[in-house]
Amino acid sequence: MIHSPQGFRTAVTCAGLREADRPDMALIASDRPCQAAGVFTRNRVKAAPVLYDQQILSNSPATVRAVVVNTGSANACTGALGLADARATAALAAERLVCAPDAVLLLSTGVIGLPLPMDRIRAGVEALAGSLAEPDWPRAAAAIMTTDTRPKYASAQLPSGAVIAGIAKGAGMIAPNLATMLSVVTTDAVLARGVLARALAAAADASFNRIVVDGDMSTNDTVLALANGASGAAVDEAAFTAALTDVCAQLAQAIVRDGEGATKFVTLHVTGAASESDARAVAQTIATSPLVKTAFYGADANWGRILAAAGRAGVDFDASRVALWLWEDEAQPIQLVAGGQPTAYDEPAAIALMRGDAWHVRLDLGAGDAATWIWTCDLSHEYVTINSHYRT
Amino acid sequence: MIHSPQGFRTAVTCAGLREADRPDMALIASDRPCQAAGVFTRNRVKAAPVLYDQQILSNSPATVRAVVVNTGSANACTGALGLADARATAALAAERLVCAPDAVLLLSTGVIGLPLPMDRIRAGVEALAGSLAEPDWPRAAAAIMTTDTRPKYASAQLPSGAVIAGIAKGAGMIAPNLATMLSVVTTDAVLARGVLARALAAAADASFNRIVVDGDMSTNDTVLALANGASGAAVDEAAFTAALTDVCAQLAQAIVRDGEGATKFVTLHVTGAASESDARAVAQTIATSPLVKTAFYGADANWGRILAAAGRAGVDFDASRVALWLWEDEAQPIQLVAGGQPTAYDEPAAIALMRGDAWHVRLDLGAGDAATWIWTCDLSHEYVTINSHYRT
Repeated sequence: MIHSPQGFRTAVTCAGLREADRPDMALIASDRPCQAAGVFTRNRVKAAPVLYDQQILSNSPATVRAVVVNTGSANACTGALGLADARATAALAAERLVCAPDAVLLLSTGVIGLPLPMDRIRAGVEALAGSLAEPDWPRAAAAIMTTDTRPKYASAQLPSGAVIAGIAKGAGMIAPNLATMLSVVTTDAVLARGVLARALAAAADASFNRIVVDGDMSTNDTVLALANGASGAAVDEAAFTAALTDVCAQLAQAIVRDGEGATKFVTLHVTGAASESDARAVAQTIATSPLVKTAFYGADANWGRILAAAGRAGVDFDASRVALWLWEDEAQPIQLVAGGQPTAYDEPAAIALMRGDAWHVRLDLGAGDAATWIWTCDLSHEYVTINSHYRT
Repeated sequence: MIHSPQGFRTAVTCAGLREADRPDMALIASDRPCQAAGVFTRNRVKAAPVLYDQQILSNSPATVRAVVVNTGSANACTGALGLADARATAALAAERLVCAPDAVLLLSTGVIGLPLPMDRIRAGVEALAGSLAEPDWPRAAAAIMTTDTRPKYASAQLPSGAVIAGIAKGAGMIAPNLATMLSVVTTDAVLARGVLARALAAAADASFNRIVVDGDMSTNDTVLALANGASGAAVDEAAFTAALTDVCAQLAQAIVRDGEGATKFVTLHVTGAASESDARAVAQTIATSPLVKTAFYGADANWGRILAAAGRAGVDFDASRVALWLWEDEAQPIQLVAGGQPTAYDEPAAIALMRGDAWHVRLDLGAGDAATWIWTCDLSHEYVTINSHYRT
């Protein structure tokens, strides 16, 4: 069951932005002003809605009322026209919701370089504003899907009674420092100034920034958090951050599990690194290695490819001190490598374990005490099929 | 036709190192001492033969007589045993060739972590030493193949009459700063001290260091060059470097054309960068992007994915100044992007062009005058098939 924070409403509509006859726009609105915070792609090529939201959040982060999401077009590489279209979309939504234009945030996903079809977008915004109702997070999540096969939503209730609910989309172009992913997380908690931004940064770092499907980073990645205070329940910052992290982690894991063509969910731990940045560099290199990912797909306990990927991460370690484990059940790890060389491990057991759909790999570099982890998936025939035929 | 330098002989044998009943070891030997130079993987995890050759070349680079190549096992992650096996292999070859042990270099390719099957290796070395004959470069190239589908060899003749001939193998785990590739290049030119090493470094930088199949860098990558002076022909350094670069470029291109599952050969140019290192970072990020590579496979003129990949390369540029072209015939480029936005290009023409098996992409960043290029290929279903089933 999904909890829902007070004072929010949602709507979806079929604006004809995609070939399929299914909802393709969503609106999330609060009946009172929200504190808002965002985490955005670090790609140098930023979509118009990213630039727009960043400006709104730097100018007026405490009066946000709504988020409009469209699929079909990413509104990226669309120049001045793209920014004007973004402004027009927000202005129309604000007019219908009777709030200031800078109270509306925007999210777009879809093909890069395609201008927004503004006639359809306008009609869509009208329909959304006219049909706001009690929140239906699963429907809202379904309306923003692209190559996703499942809607992604999660919620949490705090001891104080405040609630957090969020939705996300994303299945490809997924890499740390976001992903091709959009997410909106809402809460009715009463938060002191600055808490929401800090909590979101911490939550994203332990969730959306830990996922790798294909290592590609999108022009549109955005996580927005809105807090409207409607519950009247003040919350402890640590407790709120933990709950927000939990919701974001559920959404982020759902993205990897639904990764384009993914058949395995792999938690990759890198330990014994000289620094956390070393650990992250090694984890990211392994998680984006096509040879490692195809070995995961083939349930091949090919630890050599993992070591070879680690070795090209630009990080200093002694190959003769490296160790590697594999497990599904933490109490029964299989050690494949010790002192940089293979152990006499049970190969059929390792293969059987990797045929499962969720398991862990740990690489210890023997170079220090720093560690990190990342959630990733395999690279399958289906990934190639999806991405060689997505657009044309 | 392949030219052959004087004073070299080759041999191949079937030592039973692989399941298939085909040659799996090769020997290249000179009838007199050679100057030798090498370029090696920068992976932190280096195979025993890499460590062994690096030591030989730093101690006695002017008396090399032979190179022994084995497939089946990479002799990587094999610890002290692996180094001892490497030494024993070289010592046996030296004994049979009646030269010093440090006159023999080694190349290994195959599965990581598998110790060399020394009984078979010893018998193989005996057979090789006993069957040295007039050089047969195509057969030698065929004997060192792994997932390669075609032997790779090339040659050049200098105006002075000196000849260069080389062989290479490699099809996967291919990235700049070498590749999973092995290459031996021989020449009978008379070279002044130091020239061979300089020429090889320059040639590798313009060839083997420009190729990307999957972005994975191997533990065994090695290019060895041997110059025995048998032609008696002194050569100009610039002319020799140019000819060596030509041979290495032919071999490197052959590796990409034979890339695992590759159906397209793409020359990717990055121009208008603020620095050459910026240009290289962008080129490498694009060439390793799974989304770009699957779009190449699908003949999808998805310039948005190319821009998005460039944008995450960690390089500073203004997205609104970017331009992109595609061509097969240099005189008829199709411009897809100008000023960061799509042009009104002819989409069917772009798709038709990309259905061809060799074409060019140029991305101009509009940020300066530096440029680079890279040779790469697409990511196909066949790549996934090969690499999910290579080992098990």
